[in-house]
Amino acid sequence: MGDGAVRLGGIVGDRNLLVGAAIAEDYGHDEALSVEPRKPAYVAKPATAEEVAELLKTASELGIPVTARGSGTGVSGGCRPADGGLVISFERMNAVLEVDTVNHVAVVQPGVTLSELDKATSPAGLGYTVYPGELSASVGGNVGTNAGGMRAIKYGVTRHNVLGLQAVLPTGEIIRTGGKVPKISSGYDLTQLVIGSEGSLALATEVTVKLHPKLPHGASVLAPFGDLDQVMTAVPKIVAAGLDPNILEYLDNMTMAAIAYSEKLELGVPEEIRERTQAYLVVSLENRHEDRLHEDIETLAELAGELGAIDVYVLEGPAARKLVEAREKAFWAAKSVGADDVIDVVVPRSAMPEFLTKSREMALSTGGGALGCGHAGDGNVHLAIFCKDPVTRKKLLTDIFALAMGLGGAISGEHGLGQSKNGYFRELEDPAKLALMRRLKQAFDPAGILNPSILFG
Amino acid sequence: MGDGAVRLGGIVGDRNLLVGAAIAEDYGHDEALSVEPRKPAYVAKPATAEEVAELLKTASELGIPVTARGSGTGVSGGCRPADGGLVISFERMNAVLEVDTVNHVAVVQPGVTLSELDKATSPAGLGYTVYPGELSASVGGNVGTNAGGMRAIKYGVTRHNVLGLQAVLPTGEIIRTGGKVPKISSGYDLTQLVIGSEGSLALATEVTVKLHPKLPHGASVLAPFGDLDQVMTAVPKIVAAGLDPNILEYLDNMTMAAIAYSEKLELGVPEEIRERTQAYLVVSLENRHEDRLHEDIETLAELAGELGAIDVYVLEGPAARKLVEAREKAFWAAKSVGADDVIDVVVPRSAMPEFLTKSREMALSTGGGALGCGHAGDGNVHLAIFCKDPVTRKKLLTDIFALAMGLGGAISGEHGLGQSKNGYFRELEDPAKLALMRRLKQAFDPAGILNPSILFG
Repeated sequence: MGDGAVRLGGIVGDRNLLVGAAIAEDYGHDEALSVEPRKPAYVAKPATAEEVAELLKTASELGIPVTARGSGTGVSGGCRPADGGLVISFERMNAVLEVDTVNHVAVVQPGVTLSELDKATSPAGLGYTVYPGELSASVGGNVGTNAGGMRAIKYGVTRHNVLGLQAVLPTGEIIRTGGKVPKISSGYDLTQLVIGSEGSLALATEVTVKLHPKLPHGASVLAPFGDLDQVMTAVPKIVAAGLDPNILEYLDNMTMAAIAYSEKLELGVPEEIRERTQAYLVVSLENRHEDRLHEDIETLAELAGELGAIDVYVLEGPAARKLVEAREKAFWAAKSVGADDVIDVVVPRSAMPEFLTKSREMALSTGGGALGCGHAGDGNVHLAIFCKDPVTRKKLLTDIFALAMGLGGAISGEHGLGQSKNGYFRELEDPAKLALMRRLKQAFDPAGILNPSILFG
Repeated sequence: MGDGAVRLGGIVGDRNLLVGAAIAEDYGHDEALSVEPRKPAYVAKPATAEEVAELLKTASELGIPVTARGSGTGVSGGCRPADGGLVISFERMNAVLEVDTVNHVAVVQPGVTLSELDKATSPAGLGYTVYPGELSASVGGNVGTNAGGMRAIKYGVTRHNVLGLQAVLPTGEIIRTGGKVPKISSGYDLTQLVIGSEGSLALATEVTVKLHPKLPHGASVLAPFGDLDQVMTAVPKIVAAGLDPNILEYLDNMTMAAIAYSEKLELGVPEEIRERTQAYLVVSLENRHEDRLHEDIETLAELAGELGAIDVYVLEGPAARKLVEAREKAFWAAKSVGADDVIDVVVPRSAMPEFLTKSREMALSTGGGALGCGHAGDGNVHLAIFCKDPVTRKKLLTDIFALAMGLGGAISGEHGLGQSKNGYFRELEDPAKLALMRRLKQAFDPAGILNPSILFG
């Protein structure tokens, strides 16, 4: 056992430090399709912020690169370890510390999963509203990637729902940022800077999240359209109607077919209509009052018809839930049909028709294809990319990301750059911003130990 | 004319550079009660981001400290110039560049006032939902302080409503952050870092703000309570009821009396009830549907009664508007009755009773007093401090801020630290966080020219 293992084991206890053959294969990767697994030199499972601080101090001293790991459900390779690196796995820091029903917040450790959090808050009629689609994801991982998901149209993404952190700086100090308050104007907002930094600035060891009252009544409208452009034109009109949807998704016909098949979903859409459909819109509403929900669903259904839907299906109860759950599995459907990568570009919603048309043309011209679905209200497009040759695919993705950025968008809306998109970011982003981000990284992490290959390669 | 004036005048044109006697007294201060005005050496009025960039490059070279100025309506001394400093006034950069009704955003220059922005968006049925109470405030100034206001309970503060910036770094680069999109996970969030930095990191030259559909129907409930603690206990229960109030304010009886007097407000509360009242709750609801509004207002009024209100008054139309407008003038009422300072501490709403009780006791024990009102739903307490002796007042404020921070809150919820609260911040904040913030400042502003006395004294 080397010096590193002795010192790291001394911090977390030998049983909570894995080295060599004891390290399970899982610690080497997340769910990214295009990032090769890499075995770390060490996996440490701390139990406290103090242990995390000691781990980081020791790693700084020994020059060991550190990667934080929650549930490993990311799709961009954000937690793929560095060569000879240390994985800090938060699996033991998985307690819901407090559900505060007066301030409507919960305080949790980073290893808590979204389903565990939901189980803890539900009895109080409260919920954490970030649903990135994978409920085994950890809150800490969500902080790292600024996770979004389907309900962001109404409730915002992780950034809008995390009020405070306890975090460990790579230099070993434990700080607290924000708190159980929705607003602070006292110094720079460190909470917001750490959120979305993919474990490269500081490691969250406690997260204070906002809770919302759970609304008891919900229903969804499924509207098939003959033309994808019509769907995109419909989206801002549905938003402007003020019905405040909590879900507003599109799925192209191939994606819907794939998830319907893999999830054994029976939507009741006759074949004759399915054949004429190019894309579907799924819009969900929720309300405290059942009568208001029904009134609004009717308004919505009428509106969908006026906006060109071939037909309109109102789904309630289990049928609505099943559709939403199936949509959440779109990534797995894409994987199962052989997608070579999945991207989650974001563009202004007005630019979605242009983006979708051009990116598909780009993909088709390589002999491959691009299929998808996405958070239409947010302009967040999830495309499964089919393009076998890695060199051609790299060129294609560069062109697609450049297109999105040229339209005023960004490479990733919610997945993060990880180690699958960071190269494109460095190639396409404004050098003045990259240089500034490097200086910010340096301000947090002078030894450069935290997830060093994120952003700066 | 010195070298500085020649070079700065060469950038903006001599008519847009003021020096010496040509500088109006107004440029030396904002509305802070406890900050002495200070005349700058120069006032420059740029017309473009490029001119701002040239000004900052020249100031860096010559070592001239730079203070950005919007409308000068801040209340913490954030735009009080530095000795021998340059004020960059955004009064000429006051165009609404775009009202985008598809993406529901507006793109504005920093000198645009909130009332100008509202005028521009209203015809489309849309509005920017940050109302810090002073509609002559500029959007740029709001970005600087992360301005809040009464509607933050529903719509959030500036931080939640600014999607992107064009900003000039002190080193002269012009960057774009964010965009017409509600979510991005691609690199560090520079937008959020600049918001609330009080002009110390970068100067915003263009701001992309979120717009919301304006809801046509609104009404308010005014509920007098015999006991301030009852008000505070009522607040979380009103939030939990899911009525989604867009305003949730408390006013103590003295503050209500002061604003009723100074604003000639007739609320229809009989004297007999006023005499038994220790504090008022004001709760406003808005809705697309008039019938739903009335139903909810009735629910709210019943709830207020159950929670101990002495009486409940439903205000609609002009009466409701007048009450809200009068509440917005609370700062001026405090000033007119001789307050020595106004603070805007934020604490978890569960901690408001303890904070209010103890801070009042602290003020009374100095022979002075503390009166106030505040954004009760947000835990953001606006207290007028009466304490003539500056040494005693400094001690009192230190104790009050330490109390708020000990309860999990912060010195300022929405006003910013400016030059009136920055000393307390340096004294009370965690040294590890202060050191990190200094390094972040250094990463943006190596020459230390941007509002150098903010935060770091």
